[in-house]
Amino acid sequence: MQKKYLLFAPGPSPIPPKVLLAMAEPIIHHRAPAYIKVLEEVREGLKYLFQTKNEVLIFASSGTGAMEGAVTNTLCAGDKALVVQGGKFGERWANICKGYGVHAKIIHVEWGRAVDPEMIKKALEVEPAIKAVFIQASETSTGVRHPVKEIAGIVKNYENTILIVDAITGIGVFDLPTDKWNLDILVGGSQKALMLPPGLAFAALTDKAWRFIEKSTLPKFYFDFRKELKNIKDNQSAYTPAVSLVIGLREVLRMIKEEGLEHVFARTARMAKATREAMKALGLQLFAPDSPSDAVTAVVAPQGIDGQKVVKVLREKHNITIAGGQDQAKGKIFRIAHFGYMDTYDIVTAVAAVELALKELGHPVELGKGVKAALEVLS
Amino acid sequence: MQKKYLLFAPGPSPIPPKVLLAMAEPIIHHRAPAYIKVLEEVREGLKYLFQTKNEVLIFASSGTGAMEGAVTNTLCAGDKALVVQGGKFGERWANICKGYGVHAKIIHVEWGRAVDPEMIKKALEVEPAIKAVFIQASETSTGVRHPVKEIAGIVKNYENTILIVDAITGIGVFDLPTDKWNLDILVGGSQKALMLPPGLAFAALTDKAWRFIEKSTLPKFYFDFRKELKNIKDNQSAYTPAVSLVIGLREVLRMIKEEGLEHVFARTARMAKATREAMKALGLQLFAPDSPSDAVTAVVAPQGIDGQKVVKVLREKHNITIAGGQDQAKGKIFRIAHFGYMDTYDIVTAVAAVELALKELGHPVELGKGVKAALEVLS
Repeated sequence: MQKKYLLFAPGPSPIPPKVLLAMAEPIIHHRAPAYIKVLEEVREGLKYLFQTKNEVLIFASSGTGAMEGAVTNTLCAGDKALVVQGGKFGERWANICKGYGVHAKIIHVEWGRAVDPEMIKKALEVEPAIKAVFIQASETSTGVRHPVKEIAGIVKNYENTILIVDAITGIGVFDLPTDKWNLDILVGGSQKALMLPPGLAFAALTDKAWRFIEKSTLPKFYFDFRKELKNIKDNQSAYTPAVSLVIGLREVLRMIKEEGLEHVFARTARMAKATREAMKALGLQLFAPDSPSDAVTAVVAPQGIDGQKVVKVLREKHNITIAGGQDQAKGKIFRIAHFGYMDTYDIVTAVAAVELALKELGHPVELGKGVKAALEVLS
Repeated sequence: MQKKYLLFAPGPSPIPPKVLLAMAEPIIHHRAPAYIKVLEEVREGLKYLFQTKNEVLIFASSGTGAMEGAVTNTLCAGDKALVVQGGKFGERWANICKGYGVHAKIIHVEWGRAVDPEMIKKALEVEPAIKAVFIQASETSTGVRHPVKEIAGIVKNYENTILIVDAITGIGVFDLPTDKWNLDILVGGSQKALMLPPGLAFAALTDKAWRFIEKSTLPKFYFDFRKELKNIKDNQSAYTPAVSLVIGLREVLRMIKEEGLEHVFARTARMAKATREAMKALGLQLFAPDSPSDAVTAVVAPQGIDGQKVVKVLREKHNITIAGGQDQAKGKIFRIAHFGYMDTYDIVTAVAAVELALKELGHPVELGKGVKAALEVLS
C-alpha cells in the first residue's frame, strides 16, 4: 500500500523541492563566476540569518566539525573551560575539550532541565581563568532550550572569557542574534532549520572571538577559521567547497529572507506550541516542561510503553521517521522535530501519527484529541 | 547566444544526470532502514573501488579533511616523516605535518617531474626512523603521476614506516590496488573520478596502517579513524553523514562496477592519451612529458601566450571551465581533466575548444589538427 515517507526527526529534515532541484543542476566549478555570485549572495544571507556584521564561515563537514573548530581555534592546551552538560551534545563539547587537552569543568544539568545562569555566574566568579563557556542553544537530545541570552550577559563581563554556542538546532529556529547578544561563537549546521542535506557547518564569530583566535595555539588544519575568513572575503574557500550544497544554501537563504526571520521564528514557535499542547491533551508528559525548545519536542513515553517502540511502529508500519531517546533517555522518550520546511499540516500529521502509534501499542488514546489541541493553537 | 556550460577542470567534474536525480530525491534519515541499505551497498562498492578487504572510511568533508586525518591518526608529535613535494598538493602534506609538529623532510621534485623512487630508498636508508612517507598518486597541479607502486615496494620493507597516498585525483582514474600494492593509506575525494559533488572524503587503510593508528597520539576528533571504523561496521557514522552525497555515491559505484574498474581505467587512459596527442599535434609541449597522469593533462602555454588567458577566453567567450596553473606554474600552463563522467566526444570538445581559444589569442593554429590526432587515438 502506498505510504509516503515522512520525516519528523531533528535532522536531517525535509528539503523544499525547489532546493532539491537547484542542487540537481549540472555542477559548476568553484572558481567559475557563476559560483562566485552564489557565494556573494550566500555571505549576505548568512549574515542576515546569524544577525551579525561579521563573515559567517562555511565548512564542508557535519556541524561537529565546526564545533571542533570552535575549540581548536580559540583555546590552547591546558586552558580552562566550562561546559554545560545536560544532554548528549553537551557531552560532545566535553569530549572535544578532552581530546585537545583543554581542562573542562562540567556543569551537570539533569536531562530535561535548562541550566540556571546563576551556576555559570558562580563558576566564573570562583574561576575567572575560564577562557570559554560551552553550551547548546537547543539540546536536541532532551528538547531543552538553554538561556543563552542570560548567560551571554554574564560572560560579556569577563574580558578573557568567550561564550561558544552550539546552535546547530537553534539557528533559524528561534532568535539568536550573534552580535546583539554577544554570542561569541555560534555554530550551525545545514540539515536542521536550514532545510538542506547534511554536509555544511557554519561558524559566526564576534570581534571578541576573533581576538581569542589570534592567540590560540591548538593545532588545526581543515577547520582553520583564520584561513577560511581570509578566503571567504575573496568569495573562495581554503579547500574545495561543497558546491551543490552551497547552491542549495542560496535557495534556502532566499526563502528565509522572503518569509522574514521573525516570521520564521513565529511560525516555528506556533508549530512547537501546537505539538506540546497536542501531547498534553493526549495525557502525555513533556520531557522538558520548563524550558522546551521550539526545535524539537521530547515526549515522555507513557507508563509501560517503550519510547523506542513508538519510533519502531511509526517506522515500520507508517514509513515515518521520528526520533527516540539517546543514551540515558533511550526508551523513556520519543522526539518530534518542528522546524525548517514545515507548516500547519505537518504538525497535524505528526500528532495524528503519534496518536495512531500509541493506539497500536495498546495505549488508550482518544483519536483526534491531540490533533484538536494542535489545531486550536495553529488556527 | 546559447552556450552550454562545459566543465573540464580537475574537480569538480561532470555528474551523471541519474546521479543528480538520485540526490534530488526527498532526503531520508541516516538511521532509517533505507539509508542503512544504501550504506551497506556503498561499503561493498568502496572496497571494490579501492581494491581492499578492509572498510573504506567516509567523511563529510573535502579530501583535505581525510588528508589531515591520515596524519593525525597515524603519527605523534615529533615524529619524522618524508614528503614528496613536486606541486601544490605535495606542499599540503608538508603543511599538515608542520601544523601538527611532525618533522617532515621534504624531497623537492621539479614541478612537472615524477619523483625517482631511489630518492625515497636512500632517504629511508639514511633515516630509518621516518614513520610515514607522503605522496600524491597524481599531482593535480602539475599533471604528474608519481610511481607509487615502486615506492610502496620500498616502504613495505620498513616495519615502522607507512606510505600515505593522496589519491584524490587518482582513485577511479588508474590502477591503485590498496592491498596488493601495500598502499597503506589511500585518500580519495568525491568530486573527481567519482563523479559526485565535492563534500565526501575517503580513506582506505591496510592492516599495517591500522597498527600505526593504535599508537598515534596526535589529537583528532572529527577525523577520528578508529571511531569511524567502529561506526561504519554498524552501517553508521560517528557524526551525521552527508546523506544525499552518499546516496549519489551508491549510484556512481554501481556505474563503476557495471563498467568494470579495468574498463574505467582503459577508457580514461585512452582519453588522456588522445588529449596528449592532440596537444602535441598542435605543436604544444606537455608540462609532464615523462610521467603524465591520466587524470589531467597540463599543457605548456605557447611562447608569448599567458596560460591564464587561455582559461579566461574559454570561460568568458565559450562558457567552458578548464584549469590554469597554480603558484609557480601560474600563467605557464593550462590543464584539461579527463576522468569520471567523460567519453570520446568530451575529449573532442575539449581539444576543439583549446584550438579555438589559441586561435582567438593570436596563436597560429591549424583548426582540426588536434581533434584529428585525438580521434586517431579514440577510434
